[in-house]
Amino acid sequence: MQKQVVNLGLAGFGTVGTGLARIIQENRDWIKRRLGKELNVLKILIRDPEKKRSFIPAPETRLTTDLEELVHDPQVDIVVELMGGVDTAYEVISRALREKKHVVTANKALLAEKGNELFSLAREHQAGLYYEASVAGGIPIVQTLKESLSGDRIISLTGILNGTANFILSEMTRKELSFESALQAAKDLGYAEADPSLDIDGHDAAHKLVVLIRLAYGLDYPLNLLPVEGIAGINAMDIAMAGELGYRLKLIAQVRDESGNLQAGVFPALMSREHILAKVDGPFNSILIHGNAVGQVMLYGQGAGDLPTGSAVLADIMALARDDAVPNNTGFLEKVLPRADLVNTELSVCRHYFRFIAQDKPGVLAAVAGVMSEHDISIAQAVQKQELPGEGGGVPIVFLTHKAGLQAVRKALKIIDGFEFVNAPAVHYCILD
Amino acid sequence: MQKQVVNLGLAGFGTVGTGLARIIQENRDWIKRRLGKELNVLKILIRDPEKKRSFIPAPETRLTTDLEELVHDPQVDIVVELMGGVDTAYEVISRALREKKHVVTANKALLAEKGNELFSLAREHQAGLYYEASVAGGIPIVQTLKESLSGDRIISLTGILNGTANFILSEMTRKELSFESALQAAKDLGYAEADPSLDIDGHDAAHKLVVLIRLAYGLDYPLNLLPVEGIAGINAMDIAMAGELGYRLKLIAQVRDESGNLQAGVFPALMSREHILAKVDGPFNSILIHGNAVGQVMLYGQGAGDLPTGSAVLADIMALARDDAVPNNTGFLEKVLPRADLVNTELSVCRHYFRFIAQDKPGVLAAVAGVMSEHDISIAQAVQKQELPGEGGGVPIVFLTHKAGLQAVRKALKIIDGFEFVNAPAVHYCILD
Repeated sequence: MQKQVVNLGLAGFGTVGTGLARIIQENRDWIKRRLGKELNVLKILIRDPEKKRSFIPAPETRLTTDLEELVHDPQVDIVVELMGGVDTAYEVISRALREKKHVVTANKALLAEKGNELFSLAREHQAGLYYEASVAGGIPIVQTLKESLSGDRIISLTGILNGTANFILSEMTRKELSFESALQAAKDLGYAEADPSLDIDGHDAAHKLVVLIRLAYGLDYPLNLLPVEGIAGINAMDIAMAGELGYRLKLIAQVRDESGNLQAGVFPALMSREHILAKVDGPFNSILIHGNAVGQVMLYGQGAGDLPTGSAVLADIMALARDDAVPNNTGFLEKVLPRADLVNTELSVCRHYFRFIAQDKPGVLAAVAGVMSEHDISIAQAVQKQELPGEGGGVPIVFLTHKAGLQAVRKALKIIDGFEFVNAPAVHYCILD
Repeated sequence: MQKQVVNLGLAGFGTVGTGLARIIQENRDWIKRRLGKELNVLKILIRDPEKKRSFIPAPETRLTTDLEELVHDPQVDIVVELMGGVDTAYEVISRALREKKHVVTANKALLAEKGNELFSLAREHQAGLYYEASVAGGIPIVQTLKESLSGDRIISLTGILNGTANFILSEMTRKELSFESALQAAKDLGYAEADPSLDIDGHDAAHKLVVLIRLAYGLDYPLNLLPVEGIAGINAMDIAMAGELGYRLKLIAQVRDESGNLQAGVFPALMSREHILAKVDGPFNSILIHGNAVGQVMLYGQGAGDLPTGSAVLADIMALARDDAVPNNTGFLEKVLPRADLVNTELSVCRHYFRFIAQDKPGVLAAVAGVMSEHDISIAQAVQKQELPGEGGGVPIVFLTHKAGLQAVRKALKIIDGFEFVNAPAVHYCILD
């Protein structure tokens, strides 16, 4: 852009929008030094004109409730979508792109659901559609996959992509809390929203994983086909057991290239406590990338918050404001990215953790081990604990296995869960290397 | 670049050069998919034409010992300098830039010593001078500082920038080895070169820190003014003591913005074992960036090796081959970056670790503590251990202090070292928060 003042139109002025405007004000001289231009928040699309606002970017900033005013204003150079949700955000972004305006967004849900359509639209109109803030807040994972590792074939990508879930699991580990108490602590500290379901059921991480898969492989992975499991059912007992055996339980988002087919999912998993990702505690995000040239690279930082997310939005704005080159939105040249070929998750292989509660009587261990053996599941370690207190009690039995296919595991568990001496269905997690 | 085949001229064909050529061959289809162009290793400048080579990029690749042939060939689009050293590399790069050729280099020593001159030259000829591989191998720290955090003011940057030194300290910690045994282990595993002095005396990390300071602040920090301390003198006793007190000893490269003045240095320091950098073990690199918007972001990975370094070189090549925009070499607009204002290191403040060996007699602890107190150094923790075995023995005494200025500390240590009951000069490290 040749202009000396680049005008921004913000759609949404909540936490991140306000944070962005504050950074632009606070770092004004710095931005000018690096960019040679000023950034000016010209217009803001808001929902509620009556709402009191603690911060207005400039006296001349105009607030509007009319979407048209934002996307059709010829003075607006870059539209910054920070409203969240899918429908209105889609309207804002698609219309801005049709007006050949650059767009910066933090909207992972929208990009996961309609990314292919929007990137194709951006391409058609030679507009930028940048989204560093959509995954892992201020961590520069989008730029890293799009540019820095563009020559690498990505073998796998393993992430802790939800800070709320990671905080809850960390608190359960460190303070031996129940899931409910840890969730309450997360709410008290502002790490979890009043309705934390997207965070704890894994769907927030799933949105981010679909965005990362597109960047790493140039492939469209349909969100509705991604296996997603959350952390709501996790029992403190399993975290303690895993800890005794040298493991940590983490909510993992992972994609692996299996001979050209993608195996992906969001799921709680055990990792050795020596694993670099297992050391990521609290409300942080982290992504471990394994490339065929670079080896292992990890990025770590705050995955949410007004300023970290605002920092990522600002980086995108500055990149678009600086360059006159054709924007590099996806990192790939295809107008429409092909659909990924998926691996049937049932065919996937990992080491496993099982925990049963069984009645304390002879033959139990032998019967369970027998079923494992019949299904070619080789046991690496077995621990039987003392009987649990209280009525119904039962003894916890934990098995760690060598690598075994998920299909065999499910069959074996079905049989074991049917034994009359087993008190409750088995708990089962993959162990990641 | 509009060309369908981008021709590379390699200066140097050692480990990294060969690694790069292998990645270009192995990932050829992938690179073409992302870039829409092919990369071709057209010419290689070598020192010894007689040397047997295990790998030649293509039948038509031409090897030459003549620098002119490389930098003046109109067919060469990008010169890739991987020869190391300062003098010939300077010749290659400066002449290529004058020919308006883009340059990619991994040469941290050259950029630390003559960066300002070379960036100014590149700017004058509108050529790219890219150097992702010069710091921390495949970790995308250059791109992150230049682009992703370009709107952030960097409060501090703290790095483990030398994998050899970090491996040695990790081995000393984990296996309770002496420095000499750990160095031998590093040599045996290929992590240390036959002459490891640049790695263990801190100068390799110093080169990298100067490159990072330029990227983070847009300032030229004269290499010869950077305080540099290595790990050669480190005693296993201090690593063990630090461990008992909950700390790890790391070779740290750090820069901090102190009200516009830069405080920088390379030095061994203690960090709490809960600190995310303290958890980085083995031959890895890691950089923790604290920005005024993004908060804390950490990047981690392999800091050396043919393929990781080759991956970073390849990313630079692809960025230059893709774009027609004016290259963004330093992340700043100034033709010559201003010189940094430096903080006098003697005025810097940190918590401290001291360890003395004193004779086991009454009044020793009181005398030492008295000197500390006279210099306003407040003691947070004191430990006196059992007498050491062997002749001369003596008892180790460790103090951890609250924050205190380095100047006061040096004065106090001078007095304490002069006491007749102190067997050897005090060992002293900063404790980083």
